[in-house]
Amino acid sequence: MPVETITWKNGKIRYVDQTRLPSELKYVNCNDITSLRIALRRLKIRGAPAIGIAGALGVVLGTKGSKAKSFNDFFKEMRKVIKFLASSRPTAINLFWALDRMECIAGKNREKPVNRIKNILLKEALKILSEDKQNCRRMARYGAGLIKNKNSVLTHCNAGGLATADYGTALGVLFWAKKQGKRIKVYVDETRPLLQGARLTTWELMHEGIDTTLICDNMAASLMAKGRIDKIFVGADRIAANGDAANKIGTYNLAILARHHKVPFYVVAPVSSFDFRLKTGCDIPIEERNGDEVRTLCGKFIAPKKVKVYNPAFDITPNEYITAIVTERGIIRKPYVKTLERLNAIKRHR
Amino acid sequence: MPVETITWKNGKIRYVDQTRLPSELKYVNCNDITSLRIALRRLKIRGAPAIGIAGALGVVLGTKGSKAKSFNDFFKEMRKVIKFLASSRPTAINLFWALDRMECIAGKNREKPVNRIKNILLKEALKILSEDKQNCRRMARYGAGLIKNKNSVLTHCNAGGLATADYGTALGVLFWAKKQGKRIKVYVDETRPLLQGARLTTWELMHEGIDTTLICDNMAASLMAKGRIDKIFVGADRIAANGDAANKIGTYNLAILARHHKVPFYVVAPVSSFDFRLKTGCDIPIEERNGDEVRTLCGKFIAPKKVKVYNPAFDITPNEYITAIVTERGIIRKPYVKTLERLNAIKRHR
Repeated sequence: MPVETITWKNGKIRYVDQTRLPSELKYVNCNDITSLRIALRRLKIRGAPAIGIAGALGVVLGTKGSKAKSFNDFFKEMRKVIKFLASSRPTAINLFWALDRMECIAGKNREKPVNRIKNILLKEALKILSEDKQNCRRMARYGAGLIKNKNSVLTHCNAGGLATADYGTALGVLFWAKKQGKRIKVYVDETRPLLQGARLTTWELMHEGIDTTLICDNMAASLMAKGRIDKIFVGADRIAANGDAANKIGTYNLAILARHHKVPFYVVAPVSSFDFRLKTGCDIPIEERNGDEVRTLCGKFIAPKKVKVYNPAFDITPNEYITAIVTERGIIRKPYVKTLERLNAIKRHR
Repeated sequence: MPVETITWKNGKIRYVDQTRLPSELKYVNCNDITSLRIALRRLKIRGAPAIGIAGALGVVLGTKGSKAKSFNDFFKEMRKVIKFLASSRPTAINLFWALDRMECIAGKNREKPVNRIKNILLKEALKILSEDKQNCRRMARYGAGLIKNKNSVLTHCNAGGLATADYGTALGVLFWAKKQGKRIKVYVDETRPLLQGARLTTWELMHEGIDTTLICDNMAASLMAKGRIDKIFVGADRIAANGDAANKIGTYNLAILARHHKVPFYVVAPVSSFDFRLKTGCDIPIEERNGDEVRTLCGKFIAPKKVKVYNPAFDITPNEYITAIVTERGIIRKPYVKTLERLNAIKRHR
């Protein structure tokens, strides 16, 4: 049974505080957008699709108490809420995609009374949430076709149920392969600095009874040299029109190692993670986070307090290193500039 | 003023407990080989050359109280001590090299009275220590010639004063470049799992007033892609006859990234780190350490307690990825199989 990472319960957002895992599975009820934004900033809620869902539900949360009588007044308030939530994290496009969708649906229903619009917003947010559940399972089915019995897979960061509504992108693929009866072995990069691999991915995989081995990020090359990695599966926070993909820092590192050792490198991401306005990955904004995430661990300094730190949260993997991108619409292969055009049309159409 | 990592003081070994840095610079006096072996096992003393020095001084420590009257009895005891110390860590060849040297010098002086031999052993150990100081400064001078003003350098783990008697191999090169008035910027891989980069290397570099920036191991590729790394300098724990080099886990990872981004990759190591009996790096024994080094941090679990862990302490960088090897005898370049022959002759001659 997958954990529900983020849901709408009794008029509030209920989420799993991911900073407490794996030692504690704590659900938090959130009733205001200030705490929601803090939860996003501090990675209590994280993972591109989950951030998108949080954004959509956040719009509901931030507008449900509105006393506006006219659409214009309501819309003005709503745009403030959207702007506030949009400022939480810059890289994952799913956040902006979900906020756009909420803004759009409100605009389309401008003739309706405000209370009705509030209802429509809640429905749209819940639709985004349930679509994510479906999309993850679709990606899982497509992706599992790439995995053979006895494959040994490497993954980075957490692209699991905790990064989505409940099932995961890259990990969903592994869950499905397991469900198909394939015996797989999964190596997990711990993923410094915030250790999403060590804390979250191992926890999810072990929960599903998958053979899981934790490694430090710098050990992946050594495993590949020994021929112990058959495939790599990762998620993405934003993919440009040419297939360049932003994902957790260290992904580009892995992609180069994969190319070097001839290991297929797969990105698993829903259509909502594509940003077709950006021609290449160079244009994807990369969040730089506080140096204390690197300097300290469990509240203790592990380096000189005054040492300078470079702490980008993401890196860009150029399209040429990506063997294929698994989406809920199927598996996309090179040349991405061409193959992604159809996906762009689908996304625009929506 | 460099810190004296390991010395002989008042008939005891005095060493810096490196597990306490950077928060505390603690000197420990060690008077028995059991505690010395624990200090080596727990990386309180670490770094190939420093391990060699510790081994040599350990032979003195373990035999100074011997009541043996004959050479044969003394030699038997001494070989027990050597065997015990040799079992502490398997990868750094400097340990076995230093223990061999101690055994040899005893054998050569078998005709002398035991007390005289004890004196000779102390002298030999102190010679190994002072040679290290000289050799590091020689490597530093050769290596600094490879660094230009305003170069941005990346290093991994700790190949500094703390890995040697007092000056360092790879970091010695940077200290010398600084001394020459070159303005350099150094990025330091934190080096999971035991964070020697974050804890020790940053501390040493900042102490020398060098512009230092700490990164997580998985961020190096991102920096290289941005053209922000001009050169990489690392140490080595053992180098085979063909130039393949064992060094801290993650070094091979860096070497591949360096090749990919056309960044020169230099290994700095004394002749004592070469193992000419081994044709290639495949034959270098790689220490695998306890999984709790990865599972826990500052005494707390950062991953599920029962997760499997793969924790090799070193990896092998094939010779083809190494631009040059800096030794106290000069800079050695490809083809290593040929260029290293002369070095082998020198080592044999000693």
